Amino acid sequence: MEEESELSIHEECGIFGIWDPAGDCARTVYYGLYALQHRGQEACGIAAINDRELSFHKDVGLVGEVFDAGRLDQLNGTMAVGHVRYATTGGNRRENAQPLTLKYVKGTLAVAHNGNLVNTQELRTAFEYRGAIFQTTTDSELIAYAIAQERLRCSCVEDAVCQAVKGLRGAYSLLVMSPQKLIAVRDPWGFRPLCMGRRGEAILFASESCALSAVGAELVREVEPGEIVVVENGEITSIRENCVNASSHMCIFEYIYFARPDSILCGQSVHMARRQAGRLLARSSPAEADVVIGVPDSGLDAAMGYAEESGIPYGIGLVKNRYVGRTFITPGQQSREQAVRIKLGALRSCVEGKRVVMIDDSIVRGTTSRQIVSLLREAGAAQVHMRVSSPPFLAPCHFGTDIPDRDELIACRYSMEEIQTLIGADSLAFLRREDLHQMVPDATCGFCEGCFTGTYPIRF
Amino acid sequence: MEEESELSIHEECGIFGIWDPAGDCARTVYYGLYALQHRGQEACGIAAINDRELSFHKDVGLVGEVFDAGRLDQLNGTMAVGHVRYATTGGNRRENAQPLTLKYVKGTLAVAHNGNLVNTQELRTAFEYRGAIFQTTTDSELIAYAIAQERLRCSCVEDAVCQAVKGLRGAYSLLVMSPQKLIAVRDPWGFRPLCMGRRGEAILFASESCALSAVGAELVREVEPGEIVVVENGEITSIRENCVNASSHMCIFEYIYFARPDSILCGQSVHMARRQAGRLLARSSPAEADVVIGVPDSGLDAAMGYAEESGIPYGIGLVKNRYVGRTFITPGQQSREQAVRIKLGALRSCVEGKRVVMIDDSIVRGTTSRQIVSLLREAGAAQVHMRVSSPPFLAPCHFGTDIPDRDELIACRYSMEEIQTLIGADSLAFLRREDLHQMVPDATCGFCEGCFTGTYPIRF
Amino acid sequence: MEEESELSIHEECGIFGIWDPAGDCARTVYYGLYALQHRGQEACGIAAINDRELSFHKDVGLVGEVFDAGRLDQLNGTMAVGHVRYATTGGNRRENAQPLTLKYVKGTLAVAHNGNLVNTQELRTAFEYRGAIFQTTTDSELIAYAIAQERLRCSCVEDAVCQAVKGLRGAYSLLVMSPQKLIAVRDPWGFRPLCMGRRGEAILFASESCALSAVGAELVREVEPGEIVVVENGEITSIRENCVNASSHMCIFEYIYFARPDSILCGQSVHMARRQAGRLLARSSPAEADVVIGVPDSGLDAAMGYAEESGIPYGIGLVKNRYVGRTFITPGQQSREQAVRIKLGALRSCVEGKRVVMIDDSIVRGTTSRQIVSLLREAGAAQVHMRVSSPPFLAPCHFGTDIPDRDELIACRYSMEEIQTLIGADSLAFLRREDLHQMVPDATCGFCEGCFTGTYPIRF
Amino acid sequence: MEEESELSIHEECGIFGIWDPAGDCARTVYYGLYALQHRGQEACGIAAINDRELSFHKDVGLVGEVFDAGRLDQLNGTMAVGHVRYATTGGNRRENAQPLTLKYVKGTLAVAHNGNLVNTQELRTAFEYRGAIFQTTTDSELIAYAIAQERLRCSCVEDAVCQAVKGLRGAYSLLVMSPQKLIAVRDPWGFRPLCMGRRGEAILFASESCALSAVGAELVREVEPGEIVVVENGEITSIRENCVNASSHMCIFEYIYFARPDSILCGQSVHMARRQAGRLLARSSPAEADVVIGVPDSGLDAAMGYAEESGIPYGIGLVKNRYVGRTFITPGQQSREQAVRIKLGALRSCVEGKRVVMIDDSIVRGTTSRQIVSLLREAGAAQVHMRVSSPPFLAPCHFGTDIPDRDELIACRYSMEEIQTLIGADSLAFLRREDLHQMVPDATCGFCEGCFTGTYPIRF
Repeated sequence: MEEESELSIHEECGIFGIWDPAGDCARTVYYGLYALQHRGQEACGIAAINDRELSFHKDVGLVGEVFDAGRLDQLNGTMAVGHVRYATTGGNRRENAQPLTLKYVKGTLAVAHNGNLVNTQELRTAFEYRGAIFQTTTDSELIAYAIAQERLRCSCVEDAVCQAVKGLRGAYSLLVMSPQKLIAVRDPWGFRPLCMGRRGEAILFASESCALSAVGAELVREVEPGEIVVVENGEITSIRENCVNASSHMCIFEYIYFARPDSILCGQSVHMARRQAGRLLARSSPAEADVVIGVPDSGLDAAMGYAEESGIPYGIGLVKNRYVGRTFITPGQQSREQAVRIKLGALRSCVEGKRVVMIDDSIVRGTTSRQIVSLLREAGAAQVHMRVSSPPFLAPCHFGTDIPDRDELIACRYSMEEIQTLIGADSLAFLRREDLHQMVPDATCGFCEGCFTGTYPIRF
Repeated sequence: MEEESELSIHEECGIFGIWDPAGDCARTVYYGLYALQHRGQEACGIAAINDRELSFHKDVGLVGEVFDAGRLDQLNGTMAVGHVRYATTGGNRRENAQPLTLKYVKGTLAVAHNGNLVNTQELRTAFEYRGAIFQTTTDSELIAYAIAQERLRCSCVEDAVCQAVKGLRGAYSLLVMSPQKLIAVRDPWGFRPLCMGRRGEAILFASESCALSAVGAELVREVEPGEIVVVENGEITSIRENCVNASSHMCIFEYIYFARPDSILCGQSVHMARRQAGRLLARSSPAEADVVIGVPDSGLDAAMGYAEESGIPYGIGLVKNRYVGRTFITPGQQSREQAVRIKLGALRSCVEGKRVVMIDDSIVRGTTSRQIVSLLREAGAAQVHMRVSSPPFLAPCHFGTDIPDRDELIACRYSMEEIQTLIGADSLAFLRREDLHQMVPDATCGFCEGCFTGTYPIRF
Repeated sequence: MEEESELSIHEECGIFGIWDPAGDCARTVYYGLYALQHRGQEACGIAAINDRELSFHKDVGLVGEVFDAGRLDQLNGTMAVGHVRYATTGGNRRENAQPLTLKYVKGTLAVAHNGNLVNTQELRTAFEYRGAIFQTTTDSELIAYAIAQERLRCSCVEDAVCQAVKGLRGAYSLLVMSPQKLIAVRDPWGFRPLCMGRRGEAILFASESCALSAVGAELVREVEPGEIVVVENGEITSIRENCVNASSHMCIFEYIYFARPDSILCGQSVHMARRQAGRLLARSSPAEADVVIGVPDSGLDAAMGYAEESGIPYGIGLVKNRYVGRTFITPGQQSREQAVRIKLGALRSCVEGKRVVMIDDSIVRGTTSRQIVSLLREAGAAQVHMRVSSPPFLAPCHFGTDIPDRDELIACRYSMEEIQTLIGADSLAFLRREDLHQMVPDATCGFCEGCFTGTYPIRF
Repeated sequence: MEEESELSIHEECGIFGIWDPAGDCARTVYYGLYALQHRGQEACGIAAINDRELSFHKDVGLVGEVFDAGRLDQLNGTMAVGHVRYATTGGNRRENAQPLTLKYVKGTLAVAHNGNLVNTQELRTAFEYRGAIFQTTTDSELIAYAIAQERLRCSCVEDAVCQAVKGLRGAYSLLVMSPQKLIAVRDPWGFRPLCMGRRGEAILFASESCALSAVGAELVREVEPGEIVVVENGEITSIRENCVNASSHMCIFEYIYFARPDSILCGQSVHMARRQAGRLLARSSPAEADVVIGVPDSGLDAAMGYAEESGIPYGIGLVKNRYVGRTFITPGQQSREQAVRIKLGALRSCVEGKRVVMIDDSIVRGTTSRQIVSLLREAGAAQVHMRVSSPPFLAPCHFGTDIPDRDELIACRYSMEEIQTLIGADSLAFLRREDLHQMVPDATCGFCEGCFTGTYPIRF
């Protein structure tokens, strides 16, 4: 994956929720959000219910920046939901931080959303024609409206949620919290992950299982596509009215890049999927080489798999600078080539005089790949064979990631040979599209591969 | 007025707006808000329209803290509205900062509100029963909803505003900004001030005329009670459909304390009103004394008037520390008496051996008055005769200030003699209620004196 | 005094110290520095001794910005000294924050200095030629070196201080704190004020008596020119070895502008001195007028005096915006004239149609005076007669204030008539130099009037 | 290495300097410090010379926090030195940020120091007995004094530096910058690394070669133990007066943990040394196992080496959370065991049912190792064999790292068997001390192994 923040792909959110009669829920959510921080680094928030009273805090910034011990103590509570957010651009970002908290006809609600709807404009317009006002540009606000309006007709909040989401088309893994209930919802297509866990009496929900492990909870199961799970006083109820029989469509790029390698999504270890991608790549696109290296961090697992399958030794060829973050001042025009040097250091002792297989998880625009190839050559690599552990991006994503439009995707604009030349590699190969499913043998779900095929599970 | 911030009375808002084809409107609003900062120190914001696009910035803090040159340059624009806010308490204050900005059926709106509605709960419930969600606790959000819903039936935004405010009961001076129009609204009772000004081609609105002067504009006139003034492309239209013939009810405490002395409200100079209050007080409650001093800053004008009328020399007896602000660490329990010493210094050379008339604008709980009397005695005052340039508070305010409930008002709990004893003064007198109207001879409006009488212009 | 911060005159420091067996000294210093904040707004610091251990905190910013409750609790202590600083310009200001804290041959010292030495360069060079290094540009560091070097020859710290200051020429009011002693020092010329107070067992020192009052202490006496007062375990010792019989040279501008009106310096009330200046001015430069107003805050006392003496009524003609501080964005080139409007509001009701006497304490470059005159005329003043309650500045100050060089002083560049024209006043008069001493009849000291005469008590 | 920040070992500094006639030196130093940030995360600073004028900025915080584009532009310059600092504890840390900047007899100097002197107290006392004052607790200040004093006798700054360092005993890699010269110094023992690089005309110095690569410079050579390299106007002069023939004593722990794996120190690749440590460990302490994993990041290279030598497959068994930083709120007493879960995630798919060899670089107190073993068992590891790629710590470090005293070192308090039990591992082995030198076959220097042996190159 390309390293320059402005050029890389971002997941748009992570969510975490807990019901725990022992209290201190905001603190657990804090740790859970730390474990999901890779899913969104721009804003975050926690809302908690303490004796039926809602309190919340949210702001732009990393979890460690937005929350301190005092803030957490103020939140506390026996139920809490949290959110980490990545947003594209725009000045008024603070307004979009989640969870969204609100008052409606039956009291308070908190809503945290991961995903992206495709019928947003249509829904907004419909609400606006009934007099609605929108203060944010988030889908959460739209969903909250839908719930509020259904609530007028429904006898309980979970029924309102169930009716409300029927009108939503697109990706949504949701946590909704009322003064007494914690409700987890996943769209019928199952685009975004959402799992359930337990820790003693406590019941938890998280975008990825790594967040459950981080707080000492056990993964119980996925929330199923279309399912609504309601937690009230420790009782778990499942509403499957929106579950459909059609196959599900989990985002396959979660396995390739977004999710943390120690997460298990739909029964499939993310780490194992990446290693398997490396193995498949070694079979389909072998290389005569002396060492296999991965671009840290996301290319390492696949590099290991490639090495295992090919018998070429695995090596550490690039070291990542752990301190380059949002405040980093990018070198100016004349020395933009230099940015990659600060972010990645080449290990001369590993690559000098060697034929190197360099594995990355994907190529978006190709800029960073070219710089890394050049860095390796400078460090003495005799040859650089680039292998990409996913197929080429051929279409944008509409379901919660920022894979860009076709005119920015290198694979839409150039042939394989041209890309290889642009990048400066001695050879270049991608994971074959037909091998994608072999990458995730343990997964109990179907997949959305829209970004690789341009065919999406929902027509729009 | 009592000096300890937690004990003093606060106006709840100030608003400022401008249409100026020359642009740079956000900067003018910035200076206007500086001049209105005394009306609200807790949060502030500016929204601007630039080529029909809305941008905004708001946060908790003083104008000088929330805005820097970069922020202003980003806003810019040929129309802009701003708001300074004082809020009672509560953790999630940032959410309540104004102007409220929103999208509705016809695009974007910005709403800035000064005042307080009395039928809030009733209106909220009605909206909630139509599926509305509320993300703040401000009246602005409610008003925005009302406008959005009326807009469905009305052919233009000003008509929607006109219909929407018909349902509001209470105090509202409003600025509403759509992509093409700047709309100023005042409630039919005329509780809160709102005036209109001009600077070349530019048209401006401000809570007080001092803000017009601050930006080099001229006061044209008040927005009348019930009037809606619409500015579009430099054309001014007035909608008087909501104007009623009944007498208006301007908050008389604006003259006594809230407004800046260099403001002119409804034709009446605030400074002159205060001086006149001092004169009336000198007639109704004379004192045998050697010097008349005012508690800075709000008691100074009345002290001058008392001195003029009584012939007793005016003196400067107390010096205010200009640096005590929100970050000041109040001395602990054991030394709370000391807080006033840091905020006010007594001028021994002025009061030593003298019989002192000490004028303040009002007494809420009496705590600070007691400390000031004690400070003056310590500085050698032979006698301290306290005169208050307003009648005693007998009832809370429901229209946009935080005059508290009866059980916190000293005048509701104790007799004049008891208060005098509690405060430690040698004599004590308040402005007579029957003299209130003589205080504002030039005013072209009627008044709300609810906090002094318990009788309000609106029944609720 | 001119209002624009970049054009006004600044005192360069204020100091405060306390020995109190009851502890909590840092907190008392905090309140004392609040009362001295007008003497320096750029940086501040507190050093405390707790059981012989030194701790400190200092930074750029106002007292309320640099310290919070947690910081004060960390400092605590049974002795403490503090400093507020105004510095001219330059980027590395944090390094110059005081008190200076250091380790030397006998342990730790803290040094806080108010004043300015005139033989700095000579002393620095001498030290450098003995191998010294200087990490700041403050006189405090130089003084600390001098003490450290004398300490090698002296049997106690106070003797070292006594010997060290013999080499210093210029203004210094010093507080020096060793693990067991609090030492107050004033230069033999007595340029800068320094007084001693008591509060129960506690012994205090402050630049001005207003700071003693602020913490509930009583003014005992001035530290005399040349005197060294040593406090150890509650015992006060005075070393007068450096006291000389020659008359002292207190900065007379302290009375005119720097000091707070509720301070008493050398027996003379500052407020009374200013009022007296007004009276003298009324006698020497009467005016046919209807009202006398002062430029707030520093011109108010003199305006009262002028009104008293002349019989012309005193009025409030200008209102100061209390919120304009360091973060204020000054209007750009085209509208610089406007800055004064935001800082000062004219009271039309007071000046309209009137012949106005406008009193300010001094004129430096004349820019602000011109703007104020223009503001008053705009508000309808028929005539504006400017009276200045000090003589014209004719020379810079070398002893701790930033009165600039002759080429920036309007009175050095233009005749009275020219200045009057530049300012746009109908008449203009300054306090006569020969009246200066009559201004301070109660003062028990002599004066430095160098800025008005160009003749200084020290030749250099 | 143990992960909990309070328990891990820290290098105490990194330095970087450049002379570049093309200018923009502060920006290059900024990028260089980013690459050295792992050597110190507590404070940092840059000093630059621009046309002989010194400017600087330094503060507590990471490079990305302390500097923004504006700060760098202000510094600029054709020479600059920078410093990253780790400091043990204490409140007044800002004062200790480096480079130290000062004025002395010949103008200005900036001094940046990496290392630790052992005769500090003796030197300080000597200086104090000559009247010196110390404002920081850094060795840099002491060194600056020494230079300043020698400068009185020497004809140029480099001679003064040469004489000054003769009195220093301990570790010092120094950069000294005068208005015209950039001087690099390394102590005769060669404890801390310091290398020289080139980029076009520019001449650079850095603690590690990775910082040279980061700015696109080439490693030229090490500054030799005892050598002084002077850069003036592009001319490089070497003073070897302090070079001694005795073998050098480079800190061997630089290879094991401190340095970045892509650095080359004294001809030896750090990555290769770690991999070699793993290989040696596999030979001396084999294990019957199914997978070899490293504790990220510092244990990964050694794990690869162990895998290579043993033939046991290399695996990724632990994932590090990249977002846990200084602001992380450590879980309370009751759940301290949980902290490691948030910092490290175990890869169940990698370790479940497996016999795991887990490699870390060192054990200090054993706490984190115990938690990691427990985490692996929870993730299903059948056995956990811990291998440590350095010998046990038996003594503290006095030369610039914070390896603690014997009573805190687990290997000083317990036998191997006891440690294995405490940690809960199935077996435990350390790198043999006799194998240490085999770890660094390419190194052209001798070593200090004091922390493993208790025998130091300098007696004290």
